[in-house]
Amino acid sequence: MPEAAPVTVAPTAPPTPAGAGRGPLGAEELAALDAHWRAANYLSAGQIYLLDNPLLREPLRPEHVKPRLLGHWGTDPGLNLVHTHLNRVIMARDLDLLCVWGPGHGAPAVLANSWLDGSYTAAYPDVTRDEAGLRRLFKQFSFPGGVPSHASPETPGSIHEGGELGYSLAHAYGAAFDNPDLVVACVIGDGEAETGPLAASWFSHTFLDPVHDGAVLPILHLNGWKIANPTVLARLPESQLDGLLRGYGYEPLRVAGDDPAAVHQDLARAMDTALDRIAALQREARAGRYDGSDGPARPRWPVITLRTPKGWTGPREVDGKPVEGTWRAHQIPVSGARSDPAHLRELERWLRSYRPSELFDENGAPVALVRAVNPSGPRRLGANPHANGGLLLRDLPLPPLADCAVPVEEPGTTTHEPTQALGGLLARVMEATRDRRDFRLVGPDETASNRLQDVYRSTGKAWQERTLPVDEHLERGGRVMEVLSEHLCQGWLEGYLLTGRHGLFSSYEAFVHVVDSMANQHIKWLRTSRRLPWRRPIASLTYLLTSHVWRQDHNGFSHQDPGFVDHVLNKSPEAVRVYLPPDTNTLLAVADHTLRSRDYVNVVIAGKQPCFDWLGIEDARAHCARGAGIWEWAGTEPESTDREPDVVLACAGDVPTQEVLAAADLLRRHLPEVAVRVVNVVDIARLMPSDAHPHGMSDRDYDALFTRDRPVIFAYHGYPWLIHRLTYRRAGHDDLHVRGYMEEGSTTTPFDMVVRNDLDRYRLAMDVIDRVPGLAVRAARLRQRLADARYRHEGWIREHGRDLPEVAEWRWGTDRPML
Amino acid sequence: MPEAAPVTVAPTAPPTPAGAGRGPLGAEELAALDAHWRAANYLSAGQIYLLDNPLLREPLRPEHVKPRLLGHWGTDPGLNLVHTHLNRVIMARDLDLLCVWGPGHGAPAVLANSWLDGSYTAAYPDVTRDEAGLRRLFKQFSFPGGVPSHASPETPGSIHEGGELGYSLAHAYGAAFDNPDLVVACVIGDGEAETGPLAASWFSHTFLDPVHDGAVLPILHLNGWKIANPTVLARLPESQLDGLLRGYGYEPLRVAGDDPAAVHQDLARAMDTALDRIAALQREARAGRYDGSDGPARPRWPVITLRTPKGWTGPREVDGKPVEGTWRAHQIPVSGARSDPAHLRELERWLRSYRPSELFDENGAPVALVRAVNPSGPRRLGANPHANGGLLLRDLPLPPLADCAVPVEEPGTTTHEPTQALGGLLARVMEATRDRRDFRLVGPDETASNRLQDVYRSTGKAWQERTLPVDEHLERGGRVMEVLSEHLCQGWLEGYLLTGRHGLFSSYEAFVHVVDSMANQHIKWLRTSRRLPWRRPIASLTYLLTSHVWRQDHNGFSHQDPGFVDHVLNKSPEAVRVYLPPDTNTLLAVADHTLRSRDYVNVVIAGKQPCFDWLGIEDARAHCARGAGIWEWAGTEPESTDREPDVVLACAGDVPTQEVLAAADLLRRHLPEVAVRVVNVVDIARLMPSDAHPHGMSDRDYDALFTRDRPVIFAYHGYPWLIHRLTYRRAGHDDLHVRGYMEEGSTTTPFDMVVRNDLDRYRLAMDVIDRVPGLAVRAARLRQRLADARYRHEGWIREHGRDLPEVAEWRWGTDRPML
Repeated sequence: MPEAAPVTVAPTAPPTPAGAGRGPLGAEELAALDAHWRAANYLSAGQIYLLDNPLLREPLRPEHVKPRLLGHWGTDPGLNLVHTHLNRVIMARDLDLLCVWGPGHGAPAVLANSWLDGSYTAAYPDVTRDEAGLRRLFKQFSFPGGVPSHASPETPGSIHEGGELGYSLAHAYGAAFDNPDLVVACVIGDGEAETGPLAASWFSHTFLDPVHDGAVLPILHLNGWKIANPTVLARLPESQLDGLLRGYGYEPLRVAGDDPAAVHQDLARAMDTALDRIAALQREARAGRYDGSDGPARPRWPVITLRTPKGWTGPREVDGKPVEGTWRAHQIPVSGARSDPAHLRELERWLRSYRPSELFDENGAPVALVRAVNPSGPRRLGANPHANGGLLLRDLPLPPLADCAVPVEEPGTTTHEPTQALGGLLARVMEATRDRRDFRLVGPDETASNRLQDVYRSTGKAWQERTLPVDEHLERGGRVMEVLSEHLCQGWLEGYLLTGRHGLFSSYEAFVHVVDSMANQHIKWLRTSRRLPWRRPIASLTYLLTSHVWRQDHNGFSHQDPGFVDHVLNKSPEAVRVYLPPDTNTLLAVADHTLRSRDYVNVVIAGKQPCFDWLGIEDARAHCARGAGIWEWAGTEPESTDREPDVVLACAGDVPTQEVLAAADLLRRHLPEVAVRVVNVVDIARLMPSDAHPHGMSDRDYDALFTRDRPVIFAYHGYPWLIHRLTYRRAGHDDLHVRGYMEEGSTTTPFDMVVRNDLDRYRLAMDVIDRVPGLAVRAARLRQRLADARYRHEGWIREHGRDLPEVAEWRWGTDRPML
Repeated sequence: MPEAAPVTVAPTAPPTPAGAGRGPLGAEELAALDAHWRAANYLSAGQIYLLDNPLLREPLRPEHVKPRLLGHWGTDPGLNLVHTHLNRVIMARDLDLLCVWGPGHGAPAVLANSWLDGSYTAAYPDVTRDEAGLRRLFKQFSFPGGVPSHASPETPGSIHEGGELGYSLAHAYGAAFDNPDLVVACVIGDGEAETGPLAASWFSHTFLDPVHDGAVLPILHLNGWKIANPTVLARLPESQLDGLLRGYGYEPLRVAGDDPAAVHQDLARAMDTALDRIAALQREARAGRYDGSDGPARPRWPVITLRTPKGWTGPREVDGKPVEGTWRAHQIPVSGARSDPAHLRELERWLRSYRPSELFDENGAPVALVRAVNPSGPRRLGANPHANGGLLLRDLPLPPLADCAVPVEEPGTTTHEPTQALGGLLARVMEATRDRRDFRLVGPDETASNRLQDVYRSTGKAWQERTLPVDEHLERGGRVMEVLSEHLCQGWLEGYLLTGRHGLFSSYEAFVHVVDSMANQHIKWLRTSRRLPWRRPIASLTYLLTSHVWRQDHNGFSHQDPGFVDHVLNKSPEAVRVYLPPDTNTLLAVADHTLRSRDYVNVVIAGKQPCFDWLGIEDARAHCARGAGIWEWAGTEPESTDREPDVVLACAGDVPTQEVLAAADLLRRHLPEVAVRVVNVVDIARLMPSDAHPHGMSDRDYDALFTRDRPVIFAYHGYPWLIHRLTYRRAGHDDLHVRGYMEEGSTTTPFDMVVRNDLDRYRLAMDVIDRVPGLAVRAARLRQRLADARYRHEGWIREHGRDLPEVAEWRWGTDRPML
């Protein structure tokens, strides 16, 4: 291929005097901002295209261009512009400012800016701020072993994965809660703005307290296009868009144009106006305005709309088709530059249009003019400690468990509502963090419905709109957050945790699937950040899944789904933990553990309905620490320790545990000669092989619990095949029989639910008869009586609408017969 | 317990003359509407409370009250009001009108109205329109074996499951598309309005063509409260809420109050105004206005905001605490009526306040005054055929497969992009349905990115806002729908299918998890509706998952998730099908099958990148019909049919198939003495036992494919343990070894992805050496060479950024060596 002719470029027009005259920027500041922006644009394009010759010190040749062009140019110039101007206001105001970068594939811009201010090199010392480092920065982008094209855990300064769109604004609010001195800027792409989670996030200010919380400054970037389509918001008439943002409760500030100098001026002015307004609103609020009784209930925060061309400053036209300002600028504006000399020249012309020789010195470092716009130390966006929250994290002050525990004299004779007791523990945590304000409880309008209402002893529910006398527990500075959106709950909590605080998400079990994909991304974030030495551990994201599948008495089929466990157990095992505490004290022990943990997603499943107490708090703690264990008091172990039991009844989950214990009770009474072992599993990953999960048991430990060759009847809270997928390599798996939820049952009684899914005590006892060799014949009559009991139940509930008394009133160790 | 004293009730004030004077309702019509509303309110409360004495013909006694009070009163009076007034406009205008009932737990209201107009009895003949039927209607509600408290498949007239909130408006728009003569009313709860999917749905009108589509009339019901909190929208200042709705692009009509007569008048007027406006907008559009070039780009559709008290007409106060108009009216306003005589009296007073004796005749049927507000036949909301879409469904005109197929002379020597060929098929379907307009393709901005762009030969992308010259394929009446929201794609398509049409959802594989919970609910809907004789089968919801886990070359880790299969396979097997076609023609065969199918959720996973062609179209069709089969040409089966092969190489998915074939090629060259069988699985449920899934194979068929005792190396597209969970009961499972995605790899080359997850050809060949008895020693040198090749690849890609030539250029049956 012939070598391309050298490309020369006339300097682009310097910032116009017209632009300078508009203020607020003086000519010198304008020049510096523009240089910084050009440098960032050059570096963004360089990452997408260049394998070598990073400063264009020689004519661009095909081998300097990456063999596969992967990346997205379209959003970068806008992000670079915002970053440059955020630098300006940070320096001018000594702001503690964090930015969430929402638009997809914006990593080249964020990385470019981070390299310019040195924060990238601080995190990755081999990517130096010189020509060699620049070569590395360029090559690694979207390259095997390198970094992805989205803001990601690898991106200094980011608390946001840009790969899945829609969560930026919720993350920004999460970061701002309880950070009164922090401003969180949030660039929202107009594509992203079409997603549901983003659309719902605008009203997050309803829950942001101007006294105790910081501020969020949304910057809606309207570059007009998604991959292949115009965006909805960009095509609205200006007045309608302003009206929409006012309807959302904000005061919009418009910036629009394609003349760099004018846009620099307008954006600088808009940022000044916005930040002045934020400061004024906070002053007013902190002086006691906005009491919610009358007048404006809450501040109207500013939002900036920034309308600039997609792929601004990139090629105007390629092959006769318009590119800049169209969807064609979304990814690679000039392709085939390695093989097409004309395209190579177009690429070179474009890259040289930034005049790199003016922007980088002979070593390849940014020149003083560019560096003049860089804040220093932790004020740099790539080095703000809030974006590496583990740096700021303090241990949560947890109460002594004994203070929250319920007394248990005899197992299975008293009941408590597990989540109600947890509410007490959370109340103490809220109390202990009253001044520190680094713990929040989020949930979709269900804190009380999930019986956690004792937490209101210590704090209220965040709410900034008008209040009425009949309202209860609403409080401007409350740290319980309720909104009918699992997306917001998850997004807020992620933002809160990633900036170094603690929290808990309580949800109806079935509807946590609403945030499956967000949980995915957070687990992926944790898995990756754990492998980055500079990222410090953050508090785990703990889900309390309650109002679970077995107790949807009045909600029925649509509210029954225990599959979130299956979902998270597909992800990287180093970041996932799942617990099924069988009673109140075990829930407390698990909560205590998970709230102390770091860098996990913890899934805790526990009921809110009255549940038998099986273990005192010390036994509960020990049992949870083991994760699985034999309940000798519940079984009929053989007298000789050399003998294995005849059958193992295993259980995981509160309802399955109750049914297994009731089945063990039936067997003890009616088949006392069968040696039954009862095993309870709290930490479900214990079932996995030790090389598949950090909590996995050795085969020896597994065999010691489950035996190598006795039938195991396993009553599991969720879909039964999960247990098989965890245990298929274990000895005796062929004789493991799992009962669980089979998508049966609807609006009905608790016992009918377990019957319909073959998880009930009678069925489990029948399973034992069917599986223990020789019993089928010997216990045929008993088996028939068990089957009759199930049949009797059906007629009873259809008439009475409630469970058979012998089932409903059963207690461990009483004489009341179930047959 | 003493019997309660008889309760007498003064007749509630009749509609005031003042109310009558406001118009548009005359006194007679007002009286009829009010009577209908009272009747519906009575029936709603009756369902929640009464086991017997349904017409209060005798004093209310404890045993008349249900033992467990389960249900939600708060939303019912508002829904009853809307239903009553929709009846009025249906009759006045002979409207073809469907209503989507969004607020949670609104079933008592919908059921009450449906019983009043006879459509309930039409679906459930034993629930007669008399006292006996009323007793059944009351008892079955939230009772074992009865019906749930949400609108659900069991609810006549509903295309919407009210159990999971947020999807009503998207469903309404889906129903309206391509139904130009239909008006779809949609009641949106102010709680539901906080969800992301609902917030995003407002802009659905951007995609609704007033010429070819019907109209959606959103009715935002502001009753002010969720379970325990005020709602955000209800607490906004009126002017802000109006501004918000205008910002969304609508023209709001306010109705508010707590005086029934006045609200009747205002709501009647608002509905008349809204429907007049809809008719006028449609007339204008259909006369050729709104051309998008200038002036108003699209109509501003009306929206009604209806602000009435929560639990309106229910108890004002209970135990000294305000109930009506507060969150306390959300569920059961008066509890404990069976045990607390005062509460029983309060309940009776409340029920009698509707004066049932005026509303029902001696047989228990609604009196003429009430029935005067009931439309008849298919105009009844509970009997509109659009709400039982199978009644309207026509078979899709699919082209002959041979017309779309790609030619395959020799397997594995040519490549095609599977989705590109599918685009051709879809173009033909679009062409064939040009006049019928009963097929749509939805996707989040990715139709072209997913290589389906040939569909634009026959139709464009729906879009009603302004257009620019640079736009491509935008078309007001287009039937491709692109919006950056999987929630909207899913919600629209559900509404479209449930009203009797056809469609396909194409999505990036990873991001389909965004709609996990919506898919859950749709599968639950199908499972339940299949069991209802009066619900007719509808077209399946088919997902094309492409841009899949193995080819995220420039997106990386955040875009890798093959777990949707695991998610749907947890649900009811009668409604779930999963296909992994390995090449272009098999994708076409699968698409043809799934587009003809009914009442399923089909998940089809296929790549968009060039993929080897393995099968000609007739072989492809036969292979897909079998669902799994031996590819004899690919293996080295033993010559005698009595002998089993030494090893089975199984594969499911396009990339695994390629790697298995390459491994088979390696083995054939380097270990020709080993008899290798290649099995390809398209229909993943074939692996399941025949009693666990309708497509499950018998053990005999399974053994005939996989043998009973030979090692099986299974290369699977997704998480490997899924294959174990499907096969754990099969013979030889202990010697089944699955390779799949292990959450490893990020932005890298295609071959590096399979290496990092141990799914590559070299690794699979090593697995064979490791698993076939006796080979480990004999083939130790070959094993080392295979390991070296993997190692060499790593160094190569880090330098060159692309795959080893011997891998990238491999083709089946060529002499080019891979080692």
